[in-house]
Amino acid sequence: MATGKLEYVRELERGNRLPNFNWIVVRIDGWHFHRFSEVHQFDKPNDARALNLMNSCAVSMLEKFPDIIFAYGDSDEYSFIWSEKTNFCERQESQILSQSVSFFTSVYVMKWGEFFPTQELTYPPAFDGRVICYPRVKLVRDYLKWRQADCHVNNQFNTCFWTLVKSGKKKSEAQKYLAGTQTAEKNQLLREFGIDYGALPAMFRKGSCVFRDKVEEGVKLDGGRKPGEETCRRVRVDYCDIIGKEFWDQHSEILVED
Amino acid sequence: MATGKLEYVRELERGNRLPNFNWIVVRIDGWHFHRFSEVHQFDKPNDARALNLMNSCAVSMLEKFPDIIFAYGDSDEYSFIWSEKTNFCERQESQILSQSVSFFTSVYVMKWGEFFPTQELTYPPAFDGRVICYPRVKLVRDYLKWRQADCHVNNQFNTCFWTLVKSGKKKSEAQKYLAGTQTAEKNQLLREFGIDYGALPAMFRKGSCVFRDKVEEGVKLDGGRKPGEETCRRVRVDYCDIIGKEFWDQHSEILVED
Amino acid sequence: MATGKLEYVRELERGNRLPNFNWIVVRIDGWHFHRFSEVHQFDKPNDARALNLMNSCAVSMLEKFPDIIFAYGDSDEYSFIWSEKTNFCERQESQILSQSVSFFTSVYVMKWGEFFPTQELTYPPAFDGRVICYPRVKLVRDYLKWRQADCHVNNQFNTCFWTLVKSGKKKSEAQKYLAGTQTAEKNQLLREFGIDYGALPAMFRKGSCVFRDKVEEGVKLDGGRKPGEETCRRVRVDYCDIIGKEFWDQHSEILVED
Amino acid sequence: MATGKLEYVRELERGNRLPNFNWIVVRIDGWHFHRFSEVHQFDKPNDARALNLMNSCAVSMLEKFPDIIFAYGDSDEYSFIWSEKTNFCERQESQILSQSVSFFTSVYVMKWGEFFPTQELTYPPAFDGRVICYPRVKLVRDYLKWRQADCHVNNQFNTCFWTLVKSGKKKSEAQKYLAGTQTAEKNQLLREFGIDYGALPAMFRKGSCVFRDKVEEGVKLDGGRKPGEETCRRVRVDYCDIIGKEFWDQHSEILVED
Repeated sequence: MATGKLEYVRELERGNRLPNFNWIVVRIDGWHFHRFSEVHQFDKPNDARALNLMNSCAVSMLEKFPDIIFAYGDSDEYSFIWSEKTNFCERQESQILSQSVSFFTSVYVMKWGEFFPTQELTYPPAFDGRVICYPRVKLVRDYLKWRQADCHVNNQFNTCFWTLVKSGKKKSEAQKYLAGTQTAEKNQLLREFGIDYGALPAMFRKGSCVFRDKVEEGVKLDGGRKPGEETCRRVRVDYCDIIGKEFWDQHSEILVED
Repeated sequence: MATGKLEYVRELERGNRLPNFNWIVVRIDGWHFHRFSEVHQFDKPNDARALNLMNSCAVSMLEKFPDIIFAYGDSDEYSFIWSEKTNFCERQESQILSQSVSFFTSVYVMKWGEFFPTQELTYPPAFDGRVICYPRVKLVRDYLKWRQADCHVNNQFNTCFWTLVKSGKKKSEAQKYLAGTQTAEKNQLLREFGIDYGALPAMFRKGSCVFRDKVEEGVKLDGGRKPGEETCRRVRVDYCDIIGKEFWDQHSEILVED
Repeated sequence: MATGKLEYVRELERGNRLPNFNWIVVRIDGWHFHRFSEVHQFDKPNDARALNLMNSCAVSMLEKFPDIIFAYGDSDEYSFIWSEKTNFCERQESQILSQSVSFFTSVYVMKWGEFFPTQELTYPPAFDGRVICYPRVKLVRDYLKWRQADCHVNNQFNTCFWTLVKSGKKKSEAQKYLAGTQTAEKNQLLREFGIDYGALPAMFRKGSCVFRDKVEEGVKLDGGRKPGEETCRRVRVDYCDIIGKEFWDQHSEILVED
Repeated sequence: MATGKLEYVRELERGNRLPNFNWIVVRIDGWHFHRFSEVHQFDKPNDARALNLMNSCAVSMLEKFPDIIFAYGDSDEYSFIWSEKTNFCERQESQILSQSVSFFTSVYVMKWGEFFPTQELTYPPAFDGRVICYPRVKLVRDYLKWRQADCHVNNQFNTCFWTLVKSGKKKSEAQKYLAGTQTAEKNQLLREFGIDYGALPAMFRKGSCVFRDKVEEGVKLDGGRKPGEETCRRVRVDYCDIIGKEFWDQHSEILVED
């Protein structure tokens, strides 16, 4: 049977080119990871293995997709910022979304054993994703501020919550105890348990940033090449403060408005 | 830092509810699988292990998402038909697309070793996906016909092509030799090489259908339950002809227009 | 100054082709017509001049746009059904919407004096519009049923309301009096005022349908042409019941699913 | 008949909120105005009556819709820039588009006689419209530059063309004569016919800008109010150069990025 007279069904395929002059944010979230983290016995409130696995996936993303210029993640979510100028897949939303989520998932499953050597993956994890367009540097930065502020709020709450639970309280009691408390009260609570919140790992408190660093490689080379003649951009993970302006002043090449 | 004054960035999140009264087709394609199949030494023109892995992923999809009512796949692509009536994730396109692609990818990587016990997965495979809405049974059936006709055309060509290559022709010669040939000529060519195309495995020639079969389980039970009292719907894989009407007459419950 | 280097701004123009296999409904509504009808002293509850003007505009629409196959209107709104198969302006939503609304408005203003010879148009009336796609005959018919049922409900209420107001009640009293009354009670009320609701003009009770009728013109011609040899399709206005099936049985050529 | 069980058809109505942080451009074009201008005997290459009518409609638009901050028009087209911050009709595309086009058309027909006292309107004119979103001041300004540059290019060509035609050339000859000529050649041609292009009315050469001017009214009042205490913003028409930066420096309040 020939396909010719059936191809009319393609007329209902619809493209959706994301508008130019916008950074494209793809945010990936663990799907039902509340259950997934219990079944796979994640440490609470933070499991360093799980976070490092997420970070490793994010690094792979930046290595795979050169037009991703920055990523920020915490807990079971990761936001990938695609360059304002990208023309990857002609900026088709469904392709950018599906390939981002698929590749991230693939790396997550493949690298599981590397980060959880003693914990078998018992069922397939999945992620969902969404796409948001931001046409100005200010909006992208406020988006990232929002995610990092959210990380802080959640992490402080969770640190208190699990401290109370580990001290013997029921989950419902811990929930009730914390309801309505302010930052100062939460810090006070932690101090009572001997925990200096500010001394906890930055990865827990600030989440993780992934970006390319300018590295002058020439200096490392003996011989013909002059220093600075060749640069490559290494993907690195850091736990930076991206709410203040210092990071963005130091990395002004990441977000540039045309 | 509080998140409140930053949440305004959410205003740029945009939903996209797929219109009611439409079946939702999610078609997943292997991304750069030409290279992937070479690196992982897939048999040509068809690798039964790779097809069975795809089918196994599709079965998992129907077990995971009750609102997928039918799936059809061949080569490195799979189409999943979501019920006209589904309200999964409020029919949001980005969620249906991203979860479908993510879960499929996750299962593919997890089950790789089961289907390729002697072939290590050397890099993360990825899939892309798209969403198409069809508002009538006729359109859904024509879509599926189109995919199966496409499977046939491709498979017949590939069978000839690889027969010629295995017989010693260069790929470019085989390509030239086949250019413009009709079905009858291709069948003649295969006969000359002692191949009866119609006797090749149906999975290669027709692709794979995945759907739920009505199974009366009551009769198998001794004891209290009466026959027919309980039915469950087992997900099965078959290599049916979905171009003709016979299959659809026999499975009239799958595609029903309201 | 050349336009070349500025044309990049066109990249942000976005098309929106309405999906094939859908009837396209453009519904036009008078914008702030509550005030407009007061300023221009429309009769209450129905002004035959205003309705006939709307109908005349609708007839012009069907004469102008051959792909509009049916229209239904009441009060200050009109719905135009574009053929499932139309390719007018390549089915671009913005063009179909803007041209429909613009042409309707233009005719409304131009013909005002014909229908309101003694009432000057004191300020420019405007209409807004929206587009809805329906992929099945059943949905289009239910849409039209919904509009006609809505016409009936509103008209019966308004007839009672203005009967009470004309009898001396304040508007707020009339509103309160009618709150929660059923159809039977409303008819009873009207009878008490000597009004037989069923005897009111059909245009008020049922709204107006505009469509093309098959008219054999040959029979009217003396001389060479034979009867039936030439047919033209005259646009007519009628106050039909489109909730029941009789109209659609008699005009089965209007809505045909491919 | 109740409407309740029919209202399900509304599920297929789809909103389309235009994204925040974008100026919304509605561009209105005369529909088949080539013919319209012939039938209504517009002067060529420019009809001052027709342009002043368009400008009058544009002024009405700014008086009607406070969130339109600027308009630019030439020939039979007009672009309306809605404020980045507008929440008119919740930024629904179909409402902003349809009301803009409808109101513009309505004013055009109503005011026709004022601008064409000796030329009857013989059939209803119509306009089509489209919507484009621009998220940065630079893009809005480049859009307006593009339209004014386009006005210049078209007007210079048309001035030459009609000069040749009025001198006795056929239209096809004039077309051929001008093909491929540059600006300097066109100016030379006009000089040969005694026309100083730069001395033609600015409305023809530059098109028309419509915007609100800050007017201090307090000074005109005798009595209690102090000068400057009350300001109103009068809508004015001017034939400014909006390609250069001078206009925008002088009217920096019009386009402000948040």
